[in-house]
Amino acid sequence: MFEEKKPEWLETAERLKPALRCETVQPISGIPDHALMGNEDVVLDFGNHFVGHLTLKVSSQGSHPDAPAWLSIKFCENARELDETLEGYNGWISKSWVQQEQVHIDVLPAVIHFPRRYAFRFVKIKVLALSSKYRLVIEDAVAETTTSVDDNAVSPLIGDEADVVIDRVALRTLRNCMQDFFEDGPKRDRRLWLGDLRLQALTNSVTYRNFDLVKRCLYLFAATSNEEGRIAACLFTEPIVEADDTFMFDYSLFFIPTLLQYVQATGDNVTKDDLLPLAWHQLKLADAQFDPDTNLIRDSDRLGWCFVDWALKLNKQFCAQAIWIYCAEAALQMNDDPALEEKIAARKDAAKKHWYDEELHLFVSDTEHQISWASQVWAVLAGILEGEEAAACLDAVASCPDAVQMVTPYMMHHYVEALCCVNRKAQARQVIRDYWGAMVSNGADTFWELFNPVDPYESPYGSHVVNSFCHAWSCTPAWFLRCGILEDRA
Amino acid sequence: MFEEKKPEWLETAERLKPALRCETVQPISGIPDHALMGNEDVVLDFGNHFVGHLTLKVSSQGSHPDAPAWLSIKFCENARELDETLEGYNGWISKSWVQQEQVHIDVLPAVIHFPRRYAFRFVKIKVLALSSKYRLVIEDAVAETTTSVDDNAVSPLIGDEADVVIDRVALRTLRNCMQDFFEDGPKRDRRLWLGDLRLQALTNSVTYRNFDLVKRCLYLFAATSNEEGRIAACLFTEPIVEADDTFMFDYSLFFIPTLLQYVQATGDNVTKDDLLPLAWHQLKLADAQFDPDTNLIRDSDRLGWCFVDWALKLNKQFCAQAIWIYCAEAALQMNDDPALEEKIAARKDAAKKHWYDEELHLFVSDTEHQISWASQVWAVLAGILEGEEAAACLDAVASCPDAVQMVTPYMMHHYVEALCCVNRKAQARQVIRDYWGAMVSNGADTFWELFNPVDPYESPYGSHVVNSFCHAWSCTPAWFLRCGILEDRA
Repeated sequence: MFEEKKPEWLETAERLKPALRCETVQPISGIPDHALMGNEDVVLDFGNHFVGHLTLKVSSQGSHPDAPAWLSIKFCENARELDETLEGYNGWISKSWVQQEQVHIDVLPAVIHFPRRYAFRFVKIKVLALSSKYRLVIEDAVAETTTSVDDNAVSPLIGDEADVVIDRVALRTLRNCMQDFFEDGPKRDRRLWLGDLRLQALTNSVTYRNFDLVKRCLYLFAATSNEEGRIAACLFTEPIVEADDTFMFDYSLFFIPTLLQYVQATGDNVTKDDLLPLAWHQLKLADAQFDPDTNLIRDSDRLGWCFVDWALKLNKQFCAQAIWIYCAEAALQMNDDPALEEKIAARKDAAKKHWYDEELHLFVSDTEHQISWASQVWAVLAGILEGEEAAACLDAVASCPDAVQMVTPYMMHHYVEALCCVNRKAQARQVIRDYWGAMVSNGADTFWELFNPVDPYESPYGSHVVNSFCHAWSCTPAWFLRCGILEDRA
Repeated sequence: MFEEKKPEWLETAERLKPALRCETVQPISGIPDHALMGNEDVVLDFGNHFVGHLTLKVSSQGSHPDAPAWLSIKFCENARELDETLEGYNGWISKSWVQQEQVHIDVLPAVIHFPRRYAFRFVKIKVLALSSKYRLVIEDAVAETTTSVDDNAVSPLIGDEADVVIDRVALRTLRNCMQDFFEDGPKRDRRLWLGDLRLQALTNSVTYRNFDLVKRCLYLFAATSNEEGRIAACLFTEPIVEADDTFMFDYSLFFIPTLLQYVQATGDNVTKDDLLPLAWHQLKLADAQFDPDTNLIRDSDRLGWCFVDWALKLNKQFCAQAIWIYCAEAALQMNDDPALEEKIAARKDAAKKHWYDEELHLFVSDTEHQISWASQVWAVLAGILEGEEAAACLDAVASCPDAVQMVTPYMMHHYVEALCCVNRKAQARQVIRDYWGAMVSNGADTFWELFNPVDPYESPYGSHVVNSFCHAWSCTPAWFLRCGILEDRA
């Protein structure tokens, strides 16, 4: 499918690859004023979160070094990472993501250029071994940092100080994920995910307005759709552009609202016309998951078949149906289609009939009668409920302590958006201040991949040592605070 | 002292810096025929001991790698090192010498060029972490190896198979230490020591005959003598040529026989005339250590004031006196001097009178009445004893189980030479076969820094993990087997 278009799409994407802007930064503190012995360590603090390459300048004090200097270097996005080790880590995300290196320096003085790119604010240098005849002097540290955005393109937010701080951290998050494509996280996974792209593009539209980067990413996804024309959940750009073999029901569909949002922001109808058939094709592919008799989506046992949130016990069936509806509505906005309109209406209707408990004012899953925040949020976003009924549903889940909680800023974004849909602007603003604000209180320079206010360092991976602390999908407070959605209607 | 000559001497040394010969080698076994998972390891065997740089070619099997590959790479001179770890190592030689690295590979396939030079036969690659979505393929491994010798310059030894093997290993040892100067060991310490140079130059004179390299090293020592004109025990060439601040009584003096041996082998009287004043100056400096009334050398508490052997409890006083005599005799061979002749005679006489126990036929130390192999060997080499009396002394120590043993091939060299001095040629040959032959039986491709046949992996450093297994001072069997000294007189 679309095979003849793919080479052209890839060319378009590659033509839009941005030149990175480089900025040289130095630590604001931590360069030791004494020479280090074996087993000593120091922490350089660069004062903010950066993405880039480190160069260390070191020398020796004492006799001519008669043995190599052996150092470990750990790059941390977050102060708390400084003292963590991989000892005992047995999670399913590879520990190879932890940004730590070992280096032997045979000749001193030396300028050590680390070839890998890191995401960091802090750099911990530990002397693993020297000889007793000399000590190590850290002369200087310089980072060549990169982003594809122009920091000056965005004016500071005017408003409440709490909001201003949250906005600044959100912008930093987005900025540091905007490299030569929209990365999900510059520490991990460093790749292009559709779920993240959608929220990044949204925030970009009211901040850096680097629409070419959005266009590039849309074309990257288009060019790497599979032989069925299905868009992957994520893709790699190195060593060559290649889709991951992971497909998620919701992520494939999110190509549609991402394209819509790009077209609305830019008026670029050439891109719209070029990619719309592929976008519509995602709806068609999704149809296979539906029972045509009941208009209900079939549940799936495949782990990760539909993402929704990083909550492993969350039943995704209802959310998947709601997300299909949400995306189909976006498709309609780009192209009228009475048949699709009918299908949407039927599937909305079926969803409400089948899953909505009118007494509880809540959507309940088929299996285990599960009640989740995610289901209520998506019911509102998909317009399955509207008006007072929608607001009541969000209230109801808040009074339901056993409801499956939201665990990511990604899901929290959708909750805040749902509150806006039901005109709970003040509450939406408060959720941002409480949730994203709590990350700021916990020392965030950029917003995190995962955050549970009750246990700030919770991780679904077994240890937060592999968590990403600058994660694209957490950047949306800047969108909420800048797009006007939080303003009370006059 | 000699300040005006030093820049010129340094220039001479640098002009003689050789171009290294490179040879590309590949493992003879170990490249795995399957893709590796996390925690798997493989051992590449390059079939012989080499000095050089490794390049690994790796790729992936399975899905597109979604996390870096994290590897540890260990370079081993010796198979036994493969399973050793630094855990619990607490010796006083820096563990930074252990040839192990960690590397993260962000993009696969990759060609990984390791920037440091290693001494190795084996390379152990362990996968510290991958993701579950792919495996690592070791496609290829190539080492760019170096030496400054021409292997074809030496004909194979003709003779007994045991001797042929020992000679081959000795040549390999010397060859791999001959880089752009005579290194003591290409794993550790990778620098120019005078004690090693003397034996390397000796062996070189009957094998590779690369006399320019000897000349270069003599000039390096001359150029870096200190403000008193004292020659250092060792020196560094990187980042600039600089002497270590270690001085040893015996090593400074060994500049004299090293120069003599060079001049005898080459007839290069220009160098002789240039460096002889500095060589003689070492004798003069050594005089300060002598009591002019007794003609006996003063003992010293300074650890390592005189090397002799790697036996920490060895009392060095007598050996130092004998080594002074040995080196003064070498000076006389380059320049007659009746006053020096007299001084030598007086110091020989005093040494014998003071330390020789006629009943035991042994030299005994002042403190603790210590009897050591080293003292008897140096008594013979210095000509303090001669003829039957000298032979009797070597026999006597062999019957003395409490004598301080010899612990290095360096000291064993002097023992074999002493046996030759007393015309015990067959015994000398047998010592070579027993001692160096036992290293061969223990798998040596090159001879070791330290070897105790009773405990082959003994180390004075706390663990043999930091021992050097290709060490210059162990290369002299090739000299004994090739220079004719072992041949019976007709």
